[in-house]
Amino acid sequence: MVRLVVTLGTTPGGVYESFINLRLGRCIGCVGPVGVDEVYVVRSASVEFTWKLVKAIFTCCDTGDVVIKDLVAPMEDMEDPEDFRRFMDAVLSVVRGGDYVDFTGGRKAMSVAAALAAREVGAHLVTTVVPPEEYGRVNELIRRLRGVEGLVEEAARGNCGIKDLVCGLVSGGARTIVLM
Amino acid sequence: MVRLVVTLGTTPGGVYESFINLRLGRCIGCVGPVGVDEVYVVRSASVEFTWKLVKAIFTCCDTGDVVIKDLVAPMEDMEDPEDFRRFMDAVLSVVRGGDYVDFTGGRKAMSVAAALAAREVGAHLVTTVVPPEEYGRVNELIRRLRGVEGLVEEAARGNCGIKDLVCGLVSGGARTIVLM
Repeated sequence: MVRLVVTLGTTPGGVYESFINLRLGRCIGCVGPVGVDEVYVVRSASVEFTWKLVKAIFTCCDTGDVVIKDLVAPMEDMEDPEDFRRFMDAVLSVVRGGDYVDFTGGRKAMSVAAALAAREVGAHLVTTVVPPEEYGRVNELIRRLRGVEGLVEEAARGNCGIKDLVCGLVSGGARTIVLM
Repeated sequence: MVRLVVTLGTTPGGVYESFINLRLGRCIGCVGPVGVDEVYVVRSASVEFTWKLVKAIFTCCDTGDVVIKDLVAPMEDMEDPEDFRRFMDAVLSVVRGGDYVDFTGGRKAMSVAAALAAREVGAHLVTTVVPPEEYGRVNELIRRLRGVEGLVEEAARGNCGIKDLVCGLVSGGARTIVLM
């Protein structure tokens, strides 16, 4: 039972790539495949649509057996030390020693809070780098999908009519690095 | 003797603001003015020009008594666990308990490495948020200053003929948050 705990920002990019790269052992700094069987997405309430996209990707694209859940941290933004502590506590509530924490998404202060939580319990630190030349294509795709939010919700529930669009959010050349 | 240790990316924004806000006690989560008298900028070799801008700002704009130094970490980018460790070690070589580490600049993995170093020795964590509406103006100014790099170097050495341009890089409404 290994968990991948990820922070989420305004693009879904990286969550799936991080998961699949770890599972296939296609990662820099890892020592072979990592049997991730649960993915926890820790996020603020403001990135609800991004979460729907991630859910749709994990439901419709090729993941194998994995459980994916989200956890909405009780803060809006990183405005003060309490927000920071609340986000860190949210990560601490799901991460355990030996898990993997990907801090790539979300605001920098969220990434830092997640990384501190990870090290507090002895979890690994992971980041996934999506090729910069992919940004334009993926952002355009997100814009299109925002126009069909209902279909994205359907996809997240398993009705994958827009599978091609949803799975197009995944970037082939993403590199996953296990930093610690 | 309190140090402010900052990570640096492609914009100088935030370093001066963080310093001056701490010194004046104009910070969220701080308990009054912080007597910062040394600023260490930890950076990769690739952001040499940004460092010159920071140096020019601290030399020509209104700082009061402070020593500013840079430390070039022996890595190019965050490509593997060794890069991460090297950056963390660079921060560890200058930070001490009770210091302040601002992780706002640079790549996320640099921010995380700096934050882990900070917590390892019991230093505070700081981030400075520049108003988004400032980005365009500041980036345009950086572009202009790149065209007169010789004058920026002069300013960094104390010949502040382009003081107005250099000090224009500072954003008035920046908020500094002491997170831990």
